[in-house]
Amino acid sequence: MTVGTIAAVRYEARVEITHLPGIADPQGATIERSLPALGYRNVSQVSVGKSIRLVVEAADEDAARSQVDEMCQRLLANPVIEAYEIHLTALASA
Amino acid sequence: MTVGTIAAVRYEARVEITHLPGIADPQGATIERSLPALGYRNVSQVSVGKSIRLVVEAADEDAARSQVDEMCQRLLANPVIEAYEIHLTALASA
Repeated sequence: MTVGTIAAVRYEARVEITHLPGIADPQGATIERSLPALGYRNVSQVSVGKSIRLVVEAADEDAARSQVDEMCQRLLANPVIEAYEIHLTALASA
Repeated sequence: MTVGTIAAVRYEARVEITHLPGIADPQGATIERSLPALGYRNVSQVSVGKSIRLVVEAADEDAARSQVDEMCQRLLANPVIEAYEIHLTALASA
């Protein structure tokens, strides 16, 4: 596929959204409290976040990363309380 | 640290929990429908899952993976509607 006259590459993005330090993580705390009752006493630092996967078409990896970052700021994450990491993998070109 | 007489290694586990194929993903569908209104017309296949991070002490990576897998089956995931992937990273030994 082309966007204008520039061949586009498809990238799979995995966005991991976590709580910023100091922001409460009640799901993680609940899991951590439940584990000893199930016999798991060697587990710590449990945190629960979101994992968003999507496919984006872009001219190159920089363009893809920049767009996904903007999407995180505007829609996918709440930058006031959440951090995010973007991991991109090029798919076969479309 | 030792468990019995066996030196334990600390592993950070990242567990990515996704919907099984055919299971509705309303969060992903809502995000995908919202993107064009924000000007993003080159994004598809949006899915939203959970990302759980935790630290587990185990004798070796196989033991750590086996325990985290069991924890997913029993507590972290719902195997009837969810799939999960486990990624382990060894931390400096404790």
